[in-house]
Amino acid sequence: MIMKISRNLSRFISHKDVFSCRFRNSVITSFNNRRNYTSLENDMTTKDIPKKNISNEEIRFTADVHSYLKRNPNFKNLSQDDISYFQSILPSNALTIESDSNQEELMAYNVDWLRIHRGKSKLVVKPKTTAQVSNIVKYCNEKKLAIVPQGGNTGLVGGSTPIFDEIIISTKNLNQIREFNPISSTLICDSGCILEILDNYLADRGHMMPLDIGSKGSCHIGGNVATNAGGVRYVRYGSLHGSILGLEVVLPDGTILDNLSTLRKDNTGYDIKQLFIGSEGTLGIITGVSILTPRCHKAINVAVLGLNSFENVQNAFITSKEMLTEILSAFEFWDAKSLKIVKTHLDQSAKFPLDEYPFYAIIETGGSNKDHDEEKLSEFLETVMEKGIVKNGIIAQDNTQMKSLWSIREGIPDASMKAGSAYFYDISIPIPVMYKIVEDVISKLKNAGLYGKPVTDVLGFGHVGDGNLHLTIITESYSPKIINLVESCINEWTEKYKGSLSAEHGIGLMKSKILKNSKPKVMVDIMRKMKYIFDPNGIMNPYKFFPY
Amino acid sequence: MIMKISRNLSRFISHKDVFSCRFRNSVITSFNNRRNYTSLENDMTTKDIPKKNISNEEIRFTADVHSYLKRNPNFKNLSQDDISYFQSILPSNALTIESDSNQEELMAYNVDWLRIHRGKSKLVVKPKTTAQVSNIVKYCNEKKLAIVPQGGNTGLVGGSTPIFDEIIISTKNLNQIREFNPISSTLICDSGCILEILDNYLADRGHMMPLDIGSKGSCHIGGNVATNAGGVRYVRYGSLHGSILGLEVVLPDGTILDNLSTLRKDNTGYDIKQLFIGSEGTLGIITGVSILTPRCHKAINVAVLGLNSFENVQNAFITSKEMLTEILSAFEFWDAKSLKIVKTHLDQSAKFPLDEYPFYAIIETGGSNKDHDEEKLSEFLETVMEKGIVKNGIIAQDNTQMKSLWSIREGIPDASMKAGSAYFYDISIPIPVMYKIVEDVISKLKNAGLYGKPVTDVLGFGHVGDGNLHLTIITESYSPKIINLVESCINEWTEKYKGSLSAEHGIGLMKSKILKNSKPKVMVDIMRKMKYIFDPNGIMNPYKFFPY
Repeated sequence: MIMKISRNLSRFISHKDVFSCRFRNSVITSFNNRRNYTSLENDMTTKDIPKKNISNEEIRFTADVHSYLKRNPNFKNLSQDDISYFQSILPSNALTIESDSNQEELMAYNVDWLRIHRGKSKLVVKPKTTAQVSNIVKYCNEKKLAIVPQGGNTGLVGGSTPIFDEIIISTKNLNQIREFNPISSTLICDSGCILEILDNYLADRGHMMPLDIGSKGSCHIGGNVATNAGGVRYVRYGSLHGSILGLEVVLPDGTILDNLSTLRKDNTGYDIKQLFIGSEGTLGIITGVSILTPRCHKAINVAVLGLNSFENVQNAFITSKEMLTEILSAFEFWDAKSLKIVKTHLDQSAKFPLDEYPFYAIIETGGSNKDHDEEKLSEFLETVMEKGIVKNGIIAQDNTQMKSLWSIREGIPDASMKAGSAYFYDISIPIPVMYKIVEDVISKLKNAGLYGKPVTDVLGFGHVGDGNLHLTIITESYSPKIINLVESCINEWTEKYKGSLSAEHGIGLMKSKILKNSKPKVMVDIMRKMKYIFDPNGIMNPYKFFPY
Repeated sequence: MIMKISRNLSRFISHKDVFSCRFRNSVITSFNNRRNYTSLENDMTTKDIPKKNISNEEIRFTADVHSYLKRNPNFKNLSQDDISYFQSILPSNALTIESDSNQEELMAYNVDWLRIHRGKSKLVVKPKTTAQVSNIVKYCNEKKLAIVPQGGNTGLVGGSTPIFDEIIISTKNLNQIREFNPISSTLICDSGCILEILDNYLADRGHMMPLDIGSKGSCHIGGNVATNAGGVRYVRYGSLHGSILGLEVVLPDGTILDNLSTLRKDNTGYDIKQLFIGSEGTLGIITGVSILTPRCHKAINVAVLGLNSFENVQNAFITSKEMLTEILSAFEFWDAKSLKIVKTHLDQSAKFPLDEYPFYAIIETGGSNKDHDEEKLSEFLETVMEKGIVKNGIIAQDNTQMKSLWSIREGIPDASMKAGSAYFYDISIPIPVMYKIVEDVISKLKNAGLYGKPVTDVLGFGHVGDGNLHLTIITESYSPKIINLVESCINEWTEKYKGSLSAEHGIGLMKSKILKNSKPKVMVDIMRKMKYIFDPNGIMNPYKFFPY
């Protein structure tokens, strides 16, 4: 690929100004560096669930951490009769019942990915069919046994783990691909299918999933839908509200709502399926998903740019929208500290070949014609270099290098957790002020004498194209003082700019206050009524969304 | 542009097989024809509301046509006190009150575009602000005065006209563009803005609306959202469920629901705004819209292809998805009879330069690089010609010719209404069987001795990419016998293939039976509960959706 760009550049040099040479030199420099640039042996974004250095037993029960949470006395306690019933309708390997010998297995379902939430569930059921889910839920509703639906358990807001003794219904055995239709580009599958497996399955058929997130190696498509997952392809393929064509859902009374349509258009009545997208298991359990899948890209290019200011990150984004329009698949950024954290704590990324810059952006293009895409990208890079927007950049030469470059961006949350106690914030805000929040938080922490110690780092990274900042605070230890300072600062910014305090991670348990405080009362009231319509007994993922 | 293709073709001829020559010859033939190919003077798809040859007085009242419709006795009759109240809160030019002198003006609001629905409303209010809408609706709710929200009144299912004496709230004065942000690509506007005006406004700023429909010259964006309008850009930009970022809605009790977000991502709670998309004014009145707007295309190409079978229409579509992937903006088809109807009844289209073929497809591409797009299109045309999928084709040379080619496709409904009494069906069905319905309907009409007379024509056209067929029956006169035969045939097909009987036109009054019969009971029950949550008095667009 570098050949292509060199060829283009020599063309430019003959009739363009001196800035072209600088870009050519830059590319060649980077190219030379890249010759020693080895691929990552492991793609840490997909295979391993990162672990903080605390043992399972050290994780406090969520119910103990949050004293406002009281077990709903209307819910029945799990009895031996209940267990016998579930044993009668499920094969023995579809149940994990609390016993001395399986504490660790049960713990994996009770504790979340962040390892800061821990429930007390004594029973996990892993149905294999929608009918089994329906029977389980119907029984629970009749007996008033509370339920937590759980997919890959990769959520970041404590939405997929129980608080008390809720029964966990795992979708892990709902893992069949039901149908793929290449003419209509539609995929129908069980909700427990792993995102990456679906993406690979589709790749063999010339298609792809319209979403791609860091946890793709473990997260379930049902969980993606239930949390309205965003990710790095969002800038191109948009929200799941547009891609999901149909859902099969087991409602809280056990009724199977069969709306597993593959039609692109169907204007017959209110679009009820939309309510389940982002409802985080509080309205029912998604068991089947029908989704529109874009064509695979015949050509993919990945470039990382070094930039001197966030203003230039923004300028590069605007220029990319103008010059790469229809082939722009992703535009993400991270700051110097994010890179440092990754380099320090994920050593396979230590060989990142670009010099130090205050900001980096990763661009991915995808299109149907390799030459066209390379020409567009080359002209784009040419322009942003000439204008001084971008200082230097590197372009991946093959799939391995693409993965390496992406692993920097995708490794930041993992590296942050290895660096200390990490607070993750997920903010939607207009692009021009996106990074000002990070600067303001740092300044306020400095003024309060908290920066340096106990707060060791404040990172900003995220999805430029979607105005979605992931602000991460790394400290030596959790403290209410830090949380209060940071959150009041974030609240100020999101209030002023009509932002959102949960862009893509959802509400779960952690952000239920946000739902209450940031949405108009009339809207929260409507949500409560919706919840009541679907789940009058409140058994479905209780204590989440509306714990107050 | 033809020059470009010729150049490419000569390249192909040198090292490709003999089929290339045939394509070159075809193009040249078409090109020669096109030299005499004058542009349409009027774009009839946008400016004129077509009129059937019956006078206003001849149109029967909807309430008389459908004897099952009974005025809800809970609704108050409009009194002089009510009128006085509205006069007190609105300027005089914002009211049309029944009087001897304004029968014609009132008729324009009481009768729909198809001229088959006629209401008996005595009052039209045309508020200019959301606060005014709120005051009107609050009063109506308190007094139990029924309301019909009305946008451009271009709907095809009788959803925007009253049945009895409902007050019409027109959005025509809610016509301000509130904000456009080029960085986030978001537009906020009043709901009464006309789609084409918004598209032109955005074009000046390098952007475009993500939807384009035949009625763009009169339809309101609020109506587009309320009916979840589809149209010809759907294949590229997808559903409004993905493009709408926020809505401002006056709820049936007068409360203003301010959810006019411009955030691309906001996962805080159930996505309530989705419910209003496609709710056809039964849950509230949309007063403001926030929408994501794609970049304008720097290069646009429009080609019409002649094809010998629907199988080849499908093959051409599959090939276009593969070869034009990211630049394919539209793929529509029509059959020979559709063209004949347009040629006969819209004489400005008589000079359509392509020979007669059983099927035609119109393709539009849009991209950021003219040369790249032309090369892709040229390679695509080359391939489909070589494979015998496409028999001949023409490519528009300029904007005027593009509009001319599009006017054939967009003129079919208008021409059908000029040809006789037209029944329009709007079916979602898997692409492979899309046209089989048309053939089956013709065969059944022939067997019943109804084809030729009174049924003069059966047309099939529509959105291939979305599996959305517009089946049109043209007869000398309406007859229950024809309707029953055609509808039972359509029902068979949609039931067998899990299709939809309203792909994009909605439910309104005409299709309320469909809602009842084609959706699972559990789903319709949920919809009724939703309706009750928002509108316990049922004042908002009554008799639509759930008249039973």
